Amino acid sequence: MIIVLKSNQSQESVDRFMKKLTTAYDVQVNTWVGASSTVLGLIGDTTAIDDEYIAAQEVVESVRRVQEPYKKANRKFHPEDTAVTLPGGQRIGGGGLALIAGPCSVESEAQICGIAERVKASGAQFLRGGAFKPRTSPYAFQGMKAEGLELLSEAKKKTGLPIVTEIMSIDHLPLFEDVDVIQVGARNMQNFELLKQLGRLRKPILLKRGLANTVEELLMSAEYIMAGGNEQVILCERGIRTYETMTRNTLDISAVPVLKRLSHLPVIVDPSHASGINWLIEPLALAAAAIGADGLIIEVHNDPSHALCDGAQSITPDQFDGLARKVTQLSGMVKGL
Amino acid sequence: MIIVLKSNQSQESVDRFMKKLTTAYDVQVNTWVGASSTVLGLIGDTTAIDDEYIAAQEVVESVRRVQEPYKKANRKFHPEDTAVTLPGGQRIGGGGLALIAGPCSVESEAQICGIAERVKASGAQFLRGGAFKPRTSPYAFQGMKAEGLELLSEAKKKTGLPIVTEIMSIDHLPLFEDVDVIQVGARNMQNFELLKQLGRLRKPILLKRGLANTVEELLMSAEYIMAGGNEQVILCERGIRTYETMTRNTLDISAVPVLKRLSHLPVIVDPSHASGINWLIEPLALAAAAIGADGLIIEVHNDPSHALCDGAQSITPDQFDGLARKVTQLSGMVKGL
Amino acid sequence: MIIVLKSNQSQESVDRFMKKLTTAYDVQVNTWVGASSTVLGLIGDTTAIDDEYIAAQEVVESVRRVQEPYKKANRKFHPEDTAVTLPGGQRIGGGGLALIAGPCSVESEAQICGIAERVKASGAQFLRGGAFKPRTSPYAFQGMKAEGLELLSEAKKKTGLPIVTEIMSIDHLPLFEDVDVIQVGARNMQNFELLKQLGRLRKPILLKRGLANTVEELLMSAEYIMAGGNEQVILCERGIRTYETMTRNTLDISAVPVLKRLSHLPVIVDPSHASGINWLIEPLALAAAAIGADGLIIEVHNDPSHALCDGAQSITPDQFDGLARKVTQLSGMVKGL
Amino acid sequence: MIIVLKSNQSQESVDRFMKKLTTAYDVQVNTWVGASSTVLGLIGDTTAIDDEYIAAQEVVESVRRVQEPYKKANRKFHPEDTAVTLPGGQRIGGGGLALIAGPCSVESEAQICGIAERVKASGAQFLRGGAFKPRTSPYAFQGMKAEGLELLSEAKKKTGLPIVTEIMSIDHLPLFEDVDVIQVGARNMQNFELLKQLGRLRKPILLKRGLANTVEELLMSAEYIMAGGNEQVILCERGIRTYETMTRNTLDISAVPVLKRLSHLPVIVDPSHASGINWLIEPLALAAAAIGADGLIIEVHNDPSHALCDGAQSITPDQFDGLARKVTQLSGMVKGL
Repeated sequence: MIIVLKSNQSQESVDRFMKKLTTAYDVQVNTWVGASSTVLGLIGDTTAIDDEYIAAQEVVESVRRVQEPYKKANRKFHPEDTAVTLPGGQRIGGGGLALIAGPCSVESEAQICGIAERVKASGAQFLRGGAFKPRTSPYAFQGMKAEGLELLSEAKKKTGLPIVTEIMSIDHLPLFEDVDVIQVGARNMQNFELLKQLGRLRKPILLKRGLANTVEELLMSAEYIMAGGNEQVILCERGIRTYETMTRNTLDISAVPVLKRLSHLPVIVDPSHASGINWLIEPLALAAAAIGADGLIIEVHNDPSHALCDGAQSITPDQFDGLARKVTQLSGMVKGL
Repeated sequence: MIIVLKSNQSQESVDRFMKKLTTAYDVQVNTWVGASSTVLGLIGDTTAIDDEYIAAQEVVESVRRVQEPYKKANRKFHPEDTAVTLPGGQRIGGGGLALIAGPCSVESEAQICGIAERVKASGAQFLRGGAFKPRTSPYAFQGMKAEGLELLSEAKKKTGLPIVTEIMSIDHLPLFEDVDVIQVGARNMQNFELLKQLGRLRKPILLKRGLANTVEELLMSAEYIMAGGNEQVILCERGIRTYETMTRNTLDISAVPVLKRLSHLPVIVDPSHASGINWLIEPLALAAAAIGADGLIIEVHNDPSHALCDGAQSITPDQFDGLARKVTQLSGMVKGL
Repeated sequence: MIIVLKSNQSQESVDRFMKKLTTAYDVQVNTWVGASSTVLGLIGDTTAIDDEYIAAQEVVESVRRVQEPYKKANRKFHPEDTAVTLPGGQRIGGGGLALIAGPCSVESEAQICGIAERVKASGAQFLRGGAFKPRTSPYAFQGMKAEGLELLSEAKKKTGLPIVTEIMSIDHLPLFEDVDVIQVGARNMQNFELLKQLGRLRKPILLKRGLANTVEELLMSAEYIMAGGNEQVILCERGIRTYETMTRNTLDISAVPVLKRLSHLPVIVDPSHASGINWLIEPLALAAAAIGADGLIIEVHNDPSHALCDGAQSITPDQFDGLARKVTQLSGMVKGL
Repeated sequence: MIIVLKSNQSQESVDRFMKKLTTAYDVQVNTWVGASSTVLGLIGDTTAIDDEYIAAQEVVESVRRVQEPYKKANRKFHPEDTAVTLPGGQRIGGGGLALIAGPCSVESEAQICGIAERVKASGAQFLRGGAFKPRTSPYAFQGMKAEGLELLSEAKKKTGLPIVTEIMSIDHLPLFEDVDVIQVGARNMQNFELLKQLGRLRKPILLKRGLANTVEELLMSAEYIMAGGNEQVILCERGIRTYETMTRNTLDISAVPVLKRLSHLPVIVDPSHASGINWLIEPLALAAAAIGADGLIIEVHNDPSHALCDGAQSITPDQFDGLARKVTQLSGMVKGL
């Protein structure tokens, strides 16, 4: 940690501050006196030091970390890739390209089971489907809730596909027993109470990047879960909010290699939410596969124009079939380049 | 609602779509046939129509609302300003400039009571103080929690100042009985399950705009609370995330007059979080008072350099005293212009 | 064009406004009277109508185009892909993946000729190199200027590679005679006087998207050049400015398929400026090839740590060699999927 | 300047790099060896050091300036406020609130002279009016050009108001002889060739912040002009591009106190372009006056609904009269607080 002091501080107040640092933390402090400012360098484990606290000190002009503020998610301390593997053998991370597919919302048994069978036949290894739906408007369809979870279990029984579905409140946790991967949506990426509770589980968590969160904040939210002991976190890039309105969000494709360099956790991409437009799903999925994503999560609906939500960004099972074939081939090729 | 259809649609599919609209919703549909596209106009109450659902229809190119998607928060249906008034007579909205002040976090009885007395003496009508703290890092101080709420009650007993404090999980609600105004933080603005639960209360809710949320989304989140029957919502502009790094966030000062035009709800400004820098608090507070904000929420700490959080953006009680005097005077003058 | 009128306008002022529209423009006006607002629909060619002028009319609440405001760049009026072909046969667009490579700045004859030979051997068909350099600081190296252009000509003579280089002022145009493709940098994308002058040439223009410009604005800037009669415009996505600081800019990969759908012009990607980090160039190049970009422009320097600019985002000739092989293979494969 | 080295570098390469630094620049280098990285601190004048060049060095992980990269614009080296004063005594900076008003475009002699007289009567000290107009569409009105400049001179003769008008190309400079303050528009803030030429003049330059430029980049562009010897630069905040679409841009009101702290140059605000909506002009102008702006530049049109550009954001002379009275009073009051 590097701390630039304000100019014209008395030696006494600088000394007092340095003493405070070495007393409070297990660090050594180096000093440099520059032409117009003095700079301190802290050596040791600074993860536990709160930069805001330091920044608030009267003698301090600015603070900057050299070490990353996350540990368990940090590749430096865990050089090998983490792969999340389910009891049934399905895997995210570790080399392959996992395909998670299904409708935005569960709407009926026929719908979810029908789609599950179709996407399985096309090569999907996981079934997604929303039971609890975060919607901007209180007047929009909010999901089938508990009943939706039951229908997902039905579809799982029929197809063997593990279930990926979103949790919106820790109170609903008892209903998620049969869920294989619990998703934290973009809007809850910094719902820290929820993250803490999920850290107590021993079940994979699919953590989506928030609308306007940085890569580092995403890793810090992963750290919340991991700090609780649950190390099975899957990171998901799903587009960020920018000034461009042509797409619903802007897919930050660079985040994939950046996250994989900084962290050992698997990284998947959600081209459906990133674009909000069905004809963009396939090109974005190809780009994600080419850049080395560990998986894709894609909205598929048998009848997008009757979907109770997100129809505009859903593709049909036939379209998914083409996409799955292409991305799987491409992913293999890329590894051989 | 205006719906532009894709070009080259068969008359039959257009007719089918129009029939669907008039069957499903209580609207009339007008049609125009343009040179390269057909446009439909829906007349009636379109609040309940999901634009995403419409956008997903095969024949549809794009959709646009003419009416706002919120009702209870909409000034059109409620032309007079709403003022939130507490049993003790403290008011936000309706003409004055409410001052809410206090530390980022409650740290001890001496600290919170001391600050409460000081800010009261300077003219603050409400005491803020965090008991549950949302922190990016799991290793940072997370607040005194239940004990913090008790200390706030102590300070309230001593000073008579009503308490404004943040809730992070609906499970903590039983602890908030003595809290006068419950704050929803920026990171929870779209924690819809929390909003729904707060809609069942009959207690003022201070709703902060999310880091990257639009003015319309803020109003939709207010609508979630109001749709539940709780109409005492106070909106808060606290800076949005942009590419500029000189300030922690970018205060969207225009949001104040825009919100007040679109909605009847009171609007306050948080210059502390908007800037993250203590020397910017006063100038931003003056700008907020000049533009017609209904109140200010400001972080005050007796000893910012020892504050357990947000010290860099806290001002001292003495600085607050000067600020309070200036903004109060200015606010009065502006009304007389 | 759809115009929503303010509510409570007198019939007389609405009539007067409609008369004005039909007199001034070659359009027909349709009307709908809704519950709370009246909507007008203009049918005909609205490209020449200035939406801001309409929006300023007293009776108008909002305006929205249904037709795109660009014509010559619009795929609707020119369904086939445009390919830009040079006299030497090098092509951008029309199916292949053009590789443009070279240093950020021309620094010496040995440097530019050496790099040119290396990138040619690796398959690049065009040589890039900056002679006039836009730099944020007046104290930074500003390029070799006229001398740099001469050295580029030398390198062209030796290798046969056509030259791509940036123009910063129309006054420099006489020096650009031997330049094959003139680049307009991101900072000049809306330097309209420059665009107009370039519209008078009959030479390909490589137009980079501005730091914070929309896809539609990029197409409008292309339209400026094309309206002057120069239809050889190549569009370039090079990253946009967002709140994320991990990369210099955020590559908007979705812009590639979006631009190709809206326009017939070729679209290339600049992964060097998009990321600013050399280890990200190859993954981003692979993503761009997979998504269907018509070309890549890449900074290559024989000795990045001595480059006079942009060293941190340059790759070595050896690295380029590997990249060129991979993207060319990938691009072929993707077409076969 | 603080340079963090990559871990695991050989002592030899670190030594070579340090030698390079002390040879090339007039600086001293301090070293610290931390647990996982080595950090260098450069002491001396680092303005001339290109951070990108440093960042590109093989041994370097990251670089950070402690000193600002601008000198002439820097308040540290010029603590007193700069005021720009015209021969007629009109002043921007130094305590007052300068009012610059006039139409978006000059349209006719009657129009510009009429508006000039009206805004003068209301207290404006400068006349603005566009002769060369940057427009997104090549099909939109591009200004009256040379004729427009002549009409501005007419208006100046009649009213004595000095002229503020935008230059779009250095080739037009000979036409600007009678112009008192030359404006550089947001889209040209980083048209460095233009800035260099304006640096040779001895005439005030009104430099607008670019759509997506940082405060530091604005100061660097001012530095371009000042480095040429022209120190009469007026900075203008005119709104930045964000994801919010309710206003045309987002006024970054915090930029005013931040710029004034970092620089001695005067800072004005453009509420017309910042919002794009006429009913927002007055509230934003009040906020700007309260926060300490040195002036306002406001679009005024006698008949906004017939304005050839930007009508939606123009106010009438009557509205300007009220606004001018209010902001002048407010500005006086604020100084007395």
